[in-house]
Amino acid sequence: MSEKILQVSEIKTLASECLQHYGCDERNAEAVADVIARAERDGCHAHGLMRLAGYTNALKSGKVNGKAKPTIESIAPSVLRANGDQGYAPLALALAREPLIATARKQGIAALALTETHHFAALWGEVEPIARAGICALACVSYMPAVIPAGGSGPLYGTNPLAFGWPRADAPPLVFDQASSVVARGEVMLAAREGRELAPGIGVDSEGHPSNDPQAVLDGALLAFGGHKGSSIAMMIELFAGALIGECFSFEAAARDNKDGGPPLGGELIIAMDPSRFGDALGWASHAERLFEQIEAQNGARLPGDRRYRNRAQSMARGVAVPASVLSTIDALLQ
Amino acid sequence: MSEKILQVSEIKTLASECLQHYGCDERNAEAVADVIARAERDGCHAHGLMRLAGYTNALKSGKVNGKAKPTIESIAPSVLRANGDQGYAPLALALAREPLIATARKQGIAALALTETHHFAALWGEVEPIARAGICALACVSYMPAVIPAGGSGPLYGTNPLAFGWPRADAPPLVFDQASSVVARGEVMLAAREGRELAPGIGVDSEGHPSNDPQAVLDGALLAFGGHKGSSIAMMIELFAGALIGECFSFEAAARDNKDGGPPLGGELIIAMDPSRFGDALGWASHAERLFEQIEAQNGARLPGDRRYRNRAQSMARGVAVPASVLSTIDALLQ
Repeated sequence: MSEKILQVSEIKTLASECLQHYGCDERNAEAVADVIARAERDGCHAHGLMRLAGYTNALKSGKVNGKAKPTIESIAPSVLRANGDQGYAPLALALAREPLIATARKQGIAALALTETHHFAALWGEVEPIARAGICALACVSYMPAVIPAGGSGPLYGTNPLAFGWPRADAPPLVFDQASSVVARGEVMLAAREGRELAPGIGVDSEGHPSNDPQAVLDGALLAFGGHKGSSIAMMIELFAGALIGECFSFEAAARDNKDGGPPLGGELIIAMDPSRFGDALGWASHAERLFEQIEAQNGARLPGDRRYRNRAQSMARGVAVPASVLSTIDALLQ
Repeated sequence: MSEKILQVSEIKTLASECLQHYGCDERNAEAVADVIARAERDGCHAHGLMRLAGYTNALKSGKVNGKAKPTIESIAPSVLRANGDQGYAPLALALAREPLIATARKQGIAALALTETHHFAALWGEVEPIARAGICALACVSYMPAVIPAGGSGPLYGTNPLAFGWPRADAPPLVFDQASSVVARGEVMLAAREGRELAPGIGVDSEGHPSNDPQAVLDGALLAFGGHKGSSIAMMIELFAGALIGECFSFEAAARDNKDGGPPLGGELIIAMDPSRFGDALGWASHAERLFEQIEAQNGARLPGDRRYRNRAQSMARGVAVPASVLSTIDALLQ
């Protein structure tokens, strides 16, 4: 497969240019491009440049507001709402981050209800900067029906990722970000694009039969991880990113979506906690390290997020290999 | 197997009498007995009367303070701490419940850090009453090392349950409560007691080899549900119920425990959110029902907690069948 090495800054510039070509104003384009570039940087190509075609489609169709002006307001002493003005989520998230961190520091625990946004990409990029500010964060988002409730027959839940970030004193934050499906839908899309078979137990085709064909699974549904337990977590995330914050469920998002290939309108919940306000103001960080030492002492076990940080270091040193097919798609978009 | 039908109130009286016989004062005994009786009532026998022998051992050894006087304090505007005074958790939880609910109503979101308690039994009994007050709750607790970190070789995490409660207008709350292990340790204990084999994929023996023998697995370790994803959740719960709130991790709890068979000293975190303060004050409850209708419309899918409520209705009507062997153990304890 032919590919080209791009620096992370070049990826961001290319993505921003492409988004502005389709009507984004500069600050919306830069916020989205930053997320795309960080995905490529960290080895998460499924959320990188390959998604630009869908994102620009959604700008072209008018579904996504490329000139969104998000607003942040306090709706309870410990709850903030960021209304994304129907734009892509990154700008609203960037504007809400500092107020959320400040509220967590003041109150001990705080929540951010993100509404009226088109969310895309992975959640680790949202909890990591909060954790870098010393605040523990939990984030979740729903999407489009893709996962079958345990025991059920058809897709109802989104792939509904849950991300967690824990601040560390002498290391980058510990971060995990995991879909409620056995694998993320982006991984299935990547397998379809690369013509790879899926491992068994990941999904079913549109008739509900187990399938290893990624395209058949994209047309069918994914299974929740860990059976009914992952299914319960997917359901909880529907409630958090939907009914709790006054936004839609995955099945409602799908019903109102125009199917232009871009992400649907929906919500996200972030819970932020300041460990220095929870009872061990001085010792919590070094205490946590004792757990991490125990994990790393076990042969074969590793801390979540380790691979992402290794990919990042490598990308910053040597750039990112981008498939020529992805670049030619972007070239065509820019015509 | 010979058994006797007891009313729920008789189970509570029997448990309270037994606990007071071993030095609990009345309000501590009643709080613990209430949890035991509710476990039996709801069909969760693994957390019922069969545990009394361990609980009384821990009173006898002096590990658990049977006359604990828990204290509740506000340590940040949205964070409460309940110090259990080294007693069993139920009294501290009962005393902290109303302050937690009130703080969630006032602030939108609130957290309870429960410390210096000996926690036992299931978490659904802790989120359900909060949800009955109209507040969405998330609770987690660590225990003793029983679960292997993904890729690792030995037990490090507790079975670390995560429980969630969602208030409903015209139905009991939706509640799930799930261990981070494939099955709860109590279920393995019950299988050992009843001489049943375990299904494959639940645990390993003390040498790390897969085993279906419940006693071998109790001596060995359990696997996390859903592979590395369940393992990540178990790790997050260690951080929430440990470093965040200034309490010990499972491996630390085990190191300081006197191994008298009763639960170790440790912590718990509860996050409580008032959905009426999150952006859809009027519509959130009926909105959530639309998700539940979609779940129940799928043949084979069911709402979490349904079976528990069915067991409860049956127990309240007809009493609970308690094995004669359990009752004779309690008789012996009372001599």
